[in-house]
Amino acid sequence: MREDHDLAFMLQYENVAWYEDGTVRILDRRTYPAKVEYVTCRTHREVAQAITDMVTQSAGPYTAAPMGMALAAYECRDRSEAEQMAYLAQAAQTISHARPTTAKRMTILCESCLDAARRALAAGERVPEAIVAHTVALNDARYGQIAKIATYLVDMFPDGGTVMTHCFAETIVGMMLRECRTRGKTIRLFCPETRPYFQGARLTATVCRDMGFEVTVISDNMAAFVMQREGVDVFTTAADAICCDGHVVNKVGTFQNAIVAKYMGIPYFVTGAPDRGHPSVDTVHIEMRDPGFTLQAMGVRTAAEGVKGYYPAFDVTPPHLVSGVVTDLGIYAPYDLNRYFADGGGKNQVVV
Amino acid sequence: MREDHDLAFMLQYENVAWYEDGTVRILDRRTYPAKVEYVTCRTHREVAQAITDMVTQSAGPYTAAPMGMALAAYECRDRSEAEQMAYLAQAAQTISHARPTTAKRMTILCESCLDAARRALAAGERVPEAIVAHTVALNDARYGQIAKIATYLVDMFPDGGTVMTHCFAETIVGMMLRECRTRGKTIRLFCPETRPYFQGARLTATVCRDMGFEVTVISDNMAAFVMQREGVDVFTTAADAICCDGHVVNKVGTFQNAIVAKYMGIPYFVTGAPDRGHPSVDTVHIEMRDPGFTLQAMGVRTAAEGVKGYYPAFDVTPPHLVSGVVTDLGIYAPYDLNRYFADGGGKNQVVV
Repeated sequence: MREDHDLAFMLQYENVAWYEDGTVRILDRRTYPAKVEYVTCRTHREVAQAITDMVTQSAGPYTAAPMGMALAAYECRDRSEAEQMAYLAQAAQTISHARPTTAKRMTILCESCLDAARRALAAGERVPEAIVAHTVALNDARYGQIAKIATYLVDMFPDGGTVMTHCFAETIVGMMLRECRTRGKTIRLFCPETRPYFQGARLTATVCRDMGFEVTVISDNMAAFVMQREGVDVFTTAADAICCDGHVVNKVGTFQNAIVAKYMGIPYFVTGAPDRGHPSVDTVHIEMRDPGFTLQAMGVRTAAEGVKGYYPAFDVTPPHLVSGVVTDLGIYAPYDLNRYFADGGGKNQVVV
Repeated sequence: MREDHDLAFMLQYENVAWYEDGTVRILDRRTYPAKVEYVTCRTHREVAQAITDMVTQSAGPYTAAPMGMALAAYECRDRSEAEQMAYLAQAAQTISHARPTTAKRMTILCESCLDAARRALAAGERVPEAIVAHTVALNDARYGQIAKIATYLVDMFPDGGTVMTHCFAETIVGMMLRECRTRGKTIRLFCPETRPYFQGARLTATVCRDMGFEVTVISDNMAAFVMQREGVDVFTTAADAICCDGHVVNKVGTFQNAIVAKYMGIPYFVTGAPDRGHPSVDTVHIEMRDPGFTLQAMGVRTAAEGVKGYYPAFDVTPPHLVSGVVTDLGIYAPYDLNRYFADGGGKNQVVV
């Protein structure tokens, strides 16, 4: 694990995948924080499977995937350069399609690893280590962008305000709270637990607590009650994809919370950058996961036999429910996202 | 347990409390359907505690409470008539306030048991058995009313339609499905699981399955997705209280589902009868339960230490989100509920 970053407080949540000496270790977020355990992958296919199996979640796959590419480079290290590049191209395909909803972002990411590999081979450098260095550089750039996003987002919080999240917004949650601390701005947070995986209860709330803020976990059916009675000032989430037409793809439940926020007159701010891979919502494919997973909670069966389950991983929030897209270049109207690119944004894919 | 009712298919869910020979046995709905276990109460205070502790839920307390009154009558059977009535009056107070949100209905119910006791004493009959007979008569009358409600509700379902519920609507779910069967009307159901107790997953879905209908459990954050993508035709719930001004008090989550249904153009029908005890929403007290309960699921801890919980048992849906109140006398606009009483309704409290 890498310990030298100035955002070390956050690395326990984000840099949860690391390539070293022919293995990739991935923090198992399925059981975190109850247990801190790692899944060890010895092939890039195992990394892809771990991503499919939700071992790592939220932005975790965007570190795990390139680390998987480093592992693929290790697997083929004794072959010819041409064979190595062919092997890596195949690995990029496998890893980037581990989860359908994020395949476009993953493809861009894994292809950037191919470029790093090509440069390393040309320079006679070791390819796995070059891909790791590339991943770290990408993460550093991403952290810098997310820190900017946090400043614009925190501008939207009244001092003493109440903020509602949904699911686990990875680095941005830590960054926005660090920004609050820097400014001496006090907020309290309500985190819907985010069934069926409980990312809100398990991950988001833990980050908030670790950052020293008052945080309350609610079940997903309490959002309207809390917005109405607890004076929620802002609803905010990250996104798995922000389409260029302003549609937001994020963990299932975001859509209904945005409907309720609109009903209550509470603004909904989504953090991240528009996704060139999704010029409109038409390119979005919603991943349907194992339906049986909604028939249990924390591994305990809830429903009787013969009852069906249903598990859309994400939903789509239309732009008229989005108050603003908070990017590294400022806040854009969801109907005006192409201006973000015109303003010079989008050189790196921002995953919050 | 009583087995002779023509609605025997439903009694396993509803007549889950029974007085006999100085004890009241209550089906423990906290673990049903995974386990079929009973809590045995030897005093009326234990019955009140069981109601407080959610051993029985939904309409279950409306049987458990009078059975507790029968038990109170057993406890004081050797005293003078005046002392028995004083003891029972105190027991009525204890039992009817076991859960604050339903105290008004419970008071009416327990006071009717006092009348039954008074008549039994005057006639020289055994009081506990008289209260049991009174409870059965009340339930029979209630079943008759709910059967009527079911006919009006099922009129609102298109054949081949899709119906969404919330929480466990007790007898009305079974009755409406029996009515569908009688008419040869096919529907499929989506049941939000209803955190934190999972009544939807554990109870509602089991009834639907037992009645032979296709039923799918979703987590509470999937309501908007399912309404939009699965063609939900009707959203329907029962209520813990229907205020005479059209506000509906029901399990937390109802409010946001009603907001989302309105957004989607899906009608929301609430079943039951207006509650004279609540002339307006101003008399409603929302019960806040143990906040720690939202930090676990099926007994397994979800959140880290230091994270706060929050547990409003109910929420309030305003009349402008209610398409109709489906009563035993037909469907009323939520703004016109006093007409229900003018039409002769409300002679018995209908608990669905």
